[in-house]
Amino acid sequence: MAKLVECVPNFSEGRRPEVVAQILDTIKGVEGVRVLDASTDASHNRAVVTFLGEPGPVKNAAFLAAARAAELINMEEHQGAHPRIGATDVIPFIPIGESTMEECVELARELGREIGYKLGIPVYLYEAASTRPERKNLSAVRKGEYEGLKTAITRPERQPDFGPPHLHPTAGATAVGARPPLVAYNINLGTADVAIAKAIAKSIRGSSGGYPSIKALGVMLEDRQVAQVTINVCNYKEVSLHRVFETVKTEAARYGVNVIGSEIVGLLPMEALLDAADFYLRLEGFSLNQVLEKRLLDQ
Amino acid sequence: MAKLVECVPNFSEGRRPEVVAQILDTIKGVEGVRVLDASTDASHNRAVVTFLGEPGPVKNAAFLAAARAAELINMEEHQGAHPRIGATDVIPFIPIGESTMEECVELARELGREIGYKLGIPVYLYEAASTRPERKNLSAVRKGEYEGLKTAITRPERQPDFGPPHLHPTAGATAVGARPPLVAYNINLGTADVAIAKAIAKSIRGSSGGYPSIKALGVMLEDRQVAQVTINVCNYKEVSLHRVFETVKTEAARYGVNVIGSEIVGLLPMEALLDAADFYLRLEGFSLNQVLEKRLLDQ
Repeated sequence: MAKLVECVPNFSEGRRPEVVAQILDTIKGVEGVRVLDASTDASHNRAVVTFLGEPGPVKNAAFLAAARAAELINMEEHQGAHPRIGATDVIPFIPIGESTMEECVELARELGREIGYKLGIPVYLYEAASTRPERKNLSAVRKGEYEGLKTAITRPERQPDFGPPHLHPTAGATAVGARPPLVAYNINLGTADVAIAKAIAKSIRGSSGGYPSIKALGVMLEDRQVAQVTINVCNYKEVSLHRVFETVKTEAARYGVNVIGSEIVGLLPMEALLDAADFYLRLEGFSLNQVLEKRLLDQ
Repeated sequence: MAKLVECVPNFSEGRRPEVVAQILDTIKGVEGVRVLDASTDASHNRAVVTFLGEPGPVKNAAFLAAARAAELINMEEHQGAHPRIGATDVIPFIPIGESTMEECVELARELGREIGYKLGIPVYLYEAASTRPERKNLSAVRKGEYEGLKTAITRPERQPDFGPPHLHPTAGATAVGARPPLVAYNINLGTADVAIAKAIAKSIRGSSGGYPSIKALGVMLEDRQVAQVTINVCNYKEVSLHRVFETVKTEAARYGVNVIGSEIVGLLPMEALLDAADFYLRLEGFSLNQVLEKRLLDQ
């Protein structure tokens, strides 16, 4: 698979398809970049694009997309349910295949510098690329959102890593980072009691003493009358899907409740599921190189 | 993944590396063909090559390899532990990705015709490509092996599907077929009693009333003092790895024996393992298209 990097920029536009299309075309126009997915959410007023390629083309496509978004999106007119600080709100780089987190950090910093000084958009580095521990968490970087950051940016602790010490007049600011692949994973319980889902979510998530790389909430699927633990598995190499599944199963049993199913939302690397197969089949000496599709991609 | 076909020809040469190298070079020389694996076994005196590509190039490479093997290998001088009827002993085509078994059957018949009439090597069609029910099973086609087939070929029931009604003077005969991907899968038991492994093998294999697509034997891993059920999962879409694993686990429990591990030998399609993850994680609505690597290969 050589050195592949995934990039999942989020743009603050989910209501004007023609604007999203122009940004997508900009990304697709870069040779060596493959767009795997693009989705928009009108209530969030936000678009999420997933693309992949070698580091150079991926960085180039992210830069051109940020430049295009700065022309097409005016944050002064933006409203939406999702927290955001800019037209290109966030750009994470994700190591895939043989590329490393260190390389993605380097890439994030190079791109941050370019967006900051060439486009005049202040850039905050986050997650593995962050330069201050308090900026590791994206929600801290986005605190106050676009509107609040207008004045907050002048405070020393909110100074951007790159670019001017004030928001871009239309594009706001951008968070650029590096992180492991995130798997959106939900586990459905055989109960309509959302309190049980909430209690289980609390027991597994990092913020209340559970697995540090797990985020979780208890929610109700009203149409099915099913309580769900909705989870972000932020580092499947640290905490795998099967460990999350088995922990939830065990916690649910304490209430006499069964796990009736689980679901993966969106894309995930094959390894995240192969790890589960490896665990349950008690495989000895299994290697990813035994997977035909991996061999194909390596060539 | 478009229409990909895997081809796993077996050649009757496992002791002269320079001969295997020449056959490999012939395959690699065909544009659009990717060699994924090549292994030789000196005691079997046999080489197994795995390559992949679109149907046209794959058929072409298989033909050229059979022609090269006919020049380089003399069956009159061949000895080895593995049953065989010719220099290119067997050529199976295997559908991968979007290609179908029907297309592989068609391909096998086209190749069989070419090997039969252009190279003068009698060809027997087997498995899904077979034209007579009794030739579905490769072991029936190979009955008597090279030496026995010399005279048996003149009998009406042993007439080849293509080519002359006598063996090629040095290359013998070749079996060409189409089959699903085969997964070589072993399950290790927490006992040194091989009789238990044999009894379990008997309970799951098709030949004694178990799953028709499962072949299984009980063997002893002397170095580890572990009894093993060694299995060919001949159609994982029919009987998946997790079903085999769970059946063996249940049968072993009857003897108070645990399954201590399992192992996959060689290559397998990612789907065979994702099916296990899907089963154990109780996934709802999972699609192969959610796997990043699948998306990459589709483009």
